[in-house]
Amino acid sequence: MMRTRPLRVALLGCGVVGSEVARIMTTQAADLAARIGAPVELAGIAVRRPDRVRAGVPQELITTDATALVKRGDIDVVVEVIGGIEPVRTLITTAFEHGAGVVSANKALLAAHGAALHAAATAAGVDLYYEAAVAGAIPLIRPLRESLAGDKVNRVLGIVNGTTNFILDRMTSTGAGYSEALDEATALGYAEADPTADVEGFDAAAKAAILAGIAFHTRVTIDDVHREGLTEVTAADIASATRMGCVVKLLAICERAADGRSVTARVHPAMIPLSHPLAGVREAYNAVFVEADAAGQLMFYGPGAGGAPTASAVLGDLVAACRNKLADRTGVGESAYTELPVSSMGEVVTRYHISLDVADKPGVLAQVATVFAEHQVSIDTVRQQGKDGEASLVVVTHRAPDAALSATVDALRKLDTVRGVASIMRVEGE
Amino acid sequence: MMRTRPLRVALLGCGVVGSEVARIMTTQAADLAARIGAPVELAGIAVRRPDRVRAGVPQELITTDATALVKRGDIDVVVEVIGGIEPVRTLITTAFEHGAGVVSANKALLAAHGAALHAAATAAGVDLYYEAAVAGAIPLIRPLRESLAGDKVNRVLGIVNGTTNFILDRMTSTGAGYSEALDEATALGYAEADPTADVEGFDAAAKAAILAGIAFHTRVTIDDVHREGLTEVTAADIASATRMGCVVKLLAICERAADGRSVTARVHPAMIPLSHPLAGVREAYNAVFVEADAAGQLMFYGPGAGGAPTASAVLGDLVAACRNKLADRTGVGESAYTELPVSSMGEVVTRYHISLDVADKPGVLAQVATVFAEHQVSIDTVRQQGKDGEASLVVVTHRAPDAALSATVDALRKLDTVRGVASIMRVEGE
Repeated sequence: MMRTRPLRVALLGCGVVGSEVARIMTTQAADLAARIGAPVELAGIAVRRPDRVRAGVPQELITTDATALVKRGDIDVVVEVIGGIEPVRTLITTAFEHGAGVVSANKALLAAHGAALHAAATAAGVDLYYEAAVAGAIPLIRPLRESLAGDKVNRVLGIVNGTTNFILDRMTSTGAGYSEALDEATALGYAEADPTADVEGFDAAAKAAILAGIAFHTRVTIDDVHREGLTEVTAADIASATRMGCVVKLLAICERAADGRSVTARVHPAMIPLSHPLAGVREAYNAVFVEADAAGQLMFYGPGAGGAPTASAVLGDLVAACRNKLADRTGVGESAYTELPVSSMGEVVTRYHISLDVADKPGVLAQVATVFAEHQVSIDTVRQQGKDGEASLVVVTHRAPDAALSATVDALRKLDTVRGVASIMRVEGE
Repeated sequence: MMRTRPLRVALLGCGVVGSEVARIMTTQAADLAARIGAPVELAGIAVRRPDRVRAGVPQELITTDATALVKRGDIDVVVEVIGGIEPVRTLITTAFEHGAGVVSANKALLAAHGAALHAAATAAGVDLYYEAAVAGAIPLIRPLRESLAGDKVNRVLGIVNGTTNFILDRMTSTGAGYSEALDEATALGYAEADPTADVEGFDAAAKAAILAGIAFHTRVTIDDVHREGLTEVTAADIASATRMGCVVKLLAICERAADGRSVTARVHPAMIPLSHPLAGVREAYNAVFVEADAAGQLMFYGPGAGGAPTASAVLGDLVAACRNKLADRTGVGESAYTELPVSSMGEVVTRYHISLDVADKPGVLAQVATVFAEHQVSIDTVRQQGKDGEASLVVVTHRAPDAALSATVDALRKLDTVRGVASIMRVEGE
């Protein structure tokens, strides 16, 4: 049953993920061959620093000329685990032009240029797979694209960044502030030296864009995603969430509008009830909740990062791409037929939890309530609390458009009796 | 892009699941056509009772002659949601012979005759898909077969029967006994009038066989699966579990042996720690935990039964089968190349929680401990408790082969000082 010529794979990048991919391709070669129907071999590994020692990676395959590697003409599949936009975008396009399918773990690239890359893959008659780009080892893209292909997905709600989940989990379990929890995450290797992409939500926003596009069969780029990081989440916010029977998570939320005519995608910290399955996702784990018309509520949970878990997703795609190469076909590609537009954050319907520092005198609550009413925002609960001559008001609203909620907060800030807005956080998952 | 001739689907069975499939095929026709690349239409619906009114199902498509329907020759895909072995096995084989791919939700058939059916599908050059056969709407078969195709799965641990999970959840939350909880499940429609298939574990065992075969790339039938139902679980067992920080679940467990040379598959009630993600699976929900070498621990969670959720899985498979028909190809089929044998329950390595009623006199614990030692079973903890002149001993063992544990219990029963073995339950998920 085996073809004589093995399938040839070029690996671009050999860091934490790439070296795991190379290791598994070597140690599991017989299983991969049996599952693919032909042996698969590493034809070359492009790296920036050829002198760096990589345990278990055949030194003779190492090259610094990635372009020459993808242009060889005998490469069946290119695995890209470099990251970033350039030179990767050019390398992948070149790989397509030379007849290679591509497996990528590159969320930033896919979230920015997914449509063009899919078009280039289709034009070349090859595959573009990227399961590893979202939530590491957790199968999400294939289930959304194929398992749920007969269903209508209405919402995707997920914890898709392990670093920020670790930080928030620590803040929740120890009462630590943001900086302290970030320091711990850095010390334990969960946060990078420059944590910006994680803590400012860029990483999660790229994943939200990819998930929204696939879930709603439309095109969503990272520029369409409303993004707020967690740097402003305070220990007081976490304590407020606890009092409400909630926990704070950095969520990626993709929703179909109630009228079905548009979609939204956003990343921000939010309170979710302790009873929600996502509330129990601890440390650096990821989990994604999917709500579909017929399926109901599904959840996918697992390690969202790390060398081996990400390599697992890469290798699943590699097996699929190799099988398709053998059969001279391509797998399920982009589906963007709905062409649903992406609405702005103002149109998202959500709830706010707002803590106000107010003057401790009669009539304040009435004033505050009037502001909410003027903006058509209905109040669910109010809790008043005195402290040292001042008072605090904690208001939780009913669902309303984000623009109305935001305008309400602006108007509250202008009230003389409101000394300050201590915190604002959305409440999700109810 | 659309072909003129629509893809034709024959539906066998129009009960709870079938009528949902028919409904969604009608209401979502435009989306299904866009995702498949051609319109898809219901060509006929075979039922036993043609006079029964089925809301939204076109009466002119109803027939009682399923054989004639699958033999028509113009059917692209047959959807089978009848259940049971015959006449379904013959109908599916006939469908293959007439060039139709098959989408089935039939766990009993696949667990008994999966290999032969796959062979027949391969011989005919058509697809056999059955995502709906395991855990309803939860994507499991495609993720195991495709997303994890580059990984090595070592264990699958799941709650795959909603009825029994509902019963155990009620026993845990209300302290009710088994019969009382079963009555409630029946009244609420979670249990059938004859609950045997669920409460005796047959349903879960069929699913375990299917999952084990796919996870380990070998063949496992329901006869290979060790099966214990939950009819003997008592309120006292549940209370013991609570005292241990555990909860009782009916688990389907598929494992690769430590030496990698065999696999096991079993279904039985077991205690799992409250901290385990499966412990939080409430009511009739299903969840499956997958442990793989590279991916680590993944969990898939969702509704495991019901018309619409099962239809979601059926329709996902239908879209895949239709796409393949259009491209004149087949998807990923059976993979059984490892030919790993299935070991018996005696070789499973697990832990026991044993409650003994013993005489309240000196030396009993020493006697009991000696029996464990003689069988090479190491004790983790012992708790002694006096009650009315008698005493109870609760022993939790370390991991040992099930045969040794079982022989230990037999020997304990023969001790004069042991009045009775009040309960035995395995402890998993640690």
